Amino acid sequence: MSVLFDRIALIGIGLIGSSLAHDIRRLGLTKEIVVATRSADTLKRAEELGLGDRYTTSSAEAVKHADLIIVSVPVGASESVAKEIAGNLQPGAIVTDVGSTKASVIAQMQPHMPENVHFIPGHPLAGTEKSGPDAGFPGLFEGRWCIFTPVAETDETALKRLRGFWEALGSKVDEMDAEHHDKVLAIVSHLPHIIAYNIVGTADDLETVTESEVIKYSASGFRDFTRLAASDPTMWRDVCLHNRDAILEMLARFSEDLAYLQRAIRWGEGDKIFELFTRTRAIRRSIVQAGQDVDAPDFGRPHPLDKK
Amino acid sequence: MSVLFDRIALIGIGLIGSSLAHDIRRLGLTKEIVVATRSADTLKRAEELGLGDRYTTSSAEAVKHADLIIVSVPVGASESVAKEIAGNLQPGAIVTDVGSTKASVIAQMQPHMPENVHFIPGHPLAGTEKSGPDAGFPGLFEGRWCIFTPVAETDETALKRLRGFWEALGSKVDEMDAEHHDKVLAIVSHLPHIIAYNIVGTADDLETVTESEVIKYSASGFRDFTRLAASDPTMWRDVCLHNRDAILEMLARFSEDLAYLQRAIRWGEGDKIFELFTRTRAIRRSIVQAGQDVDAPDFGRPHPLDKK
Repeated sequence: MSVLFDRIALIGIGLIGSSLAHDIRRLGLTKEIVVATRSADTLKRAEELGLGDRYTTSSAEAVKHADLIIVSVPVGASESVAKEIAGNLQPGAIVTDVGSTKASVIAQMQPHMPENVHFIPGHPLAGTEKSGPDAGFPGLFEGRWCIFTPVAETDETALKRLRGFWEALGSKVDEMDAEHHDKVLAIVSHLPHIIAYNIVGTADDLETVTESEVIKYSASGFRDFTRLAASDPTMWRDVCLHNRDAILEMLARFSEDLAYLQRAIRWGEGDKIFELFTRTRAIRRSIVQAGQDVDAPDFGRPHPLDKK
Repeated sequence: MSVLFDRIALIGIGLIGSSLAHDIRRLGLTKEIVVATRSADTLKRAEELGLGDRYTTSSAEAVKHADLIIVSVPVGASESVAKEIAGNLQPGAIVTDVGSTKASVIAQMQPHMPENVHFIPGHPLAGTEKSGPDAGFPGLFEGRWCIFTPVAETDETALKRLRGFWEALGSKVDEMDAEHHDKVLAIVSHLPHIIAYNIVGTADDLETVTESEVIKYSASGFRDFTRLAASDPTMWRDVCLHNRDAILEMLARFSEDLAYLQRAIRWGEGDKIFELFTRTRAIRRSIVQAGQDVDAPDFGRPHPLDKK
């Protein structure tokens, strides 16, 4: 693989930032990786892990002479990062981000971007429930989608260059407008996380069933939700606050549908229940056929007999 | 392993029935396995798979001379099975089931059981999202819980004998009363499945986001839910209809909690959101520590780079 950028500044070194560091290094995409994070402890850990070539707690410092800047912070921190780095950006530099909400990130960052810099909002649909610099690993973006939501005046050459970067990581790149992105993600990602957090909270608050019973018998369905509900609280709080309208719309639809199902259960309307439960099965099949999930039962979780 | 029963009749040969057949054979727990299912096609498939020693579409026929009868049918079919088999049960035989709801199964079956037969309701907490006789596999019950909900007059010797059977399959056996079982399962299993079905239905009904987008980008959270929502519709319709009160109670709590969270999102109350999202993380940790789920990120789903 060839060098695509002379110096890449990674602002934020959590799951996404550290995975980027692993891949940029592995694939030789730059001459120098600069790692920046506000937390001195996190920065120290990043250094122990050897994620960069230079380390700083100042994002303003980090972006100097960088031709690619990737901001991987909770979306609520986007504006403060934009303000900090704006004065030190090199003409022609590409600034991108990895935030899960796009209209809000654009509103927070774009006003601060100098005219001679290419700001291209992006969102790699990749991750796990783990967080922090230790959670990153090479290949996280392989085979995954990365969505760009370019603003009107985006330079085609810069766009092509950034596309080449993500494709080098193994990603497939899509483009759409920020508002549509935010609606799509509200249903495929934000609502599932919120629902997962919520059901785990409900189980935690019961009086009639103990927490130890919930844990002990969790393999009968509940544990599936606890994975999403173990995701980074700061990141997900910010997603809720910064994609509010689309999330509230999806929540309203979800609750409406749930009320319908609840009523069918109360009144013993087996046909309505059966119709829904059959329809949803087809979607699972499509997802597996599209290569977006494994076909192995139970997500291919290892089974006791496998070890014997 | 030694022969525990002379003849075992398996009434129903879906995921659970066929997994039982595999294990009973593998472990040599009986001299003869009789497979019964109402559907001639399913029976034919069971025979092709070699799951039993004898095959019949008549459950009344199947139970003759059997000393263990395991009913593995959707819970709504429990009463008709009980009626069919009642007249042919051998004195001293143990009749058990694997249904996900227990108060209803007891109400459906017990009145039909002859006095000289031991009826012991049971529920192995094991399964996958797959169904039918092809879905079964050896070791499904290994390391999993099996809950007995014995009725008042249950014979201790029979109970011990049935416990020995499940332990031979590698299960850990618990006992509780049927009402408590139904509450516990409502939260750890029934509510998660209902919520999963519901969210997949909501996504399917959107106009602003296409189904192909939902499928394409499903790896960002949504796909986790589609697994549970691919479970057998007949089985789950029956669970909804036969554990109605406990499910409605859990649904009411879930919706109440969701309304609280939704309000926090609407009004930008980050602290409330953060508090919930932090609390739920601890439960995931407990589940992993209790050995009830894998610690590997993303359920240990295989990763593209693994293949290289």
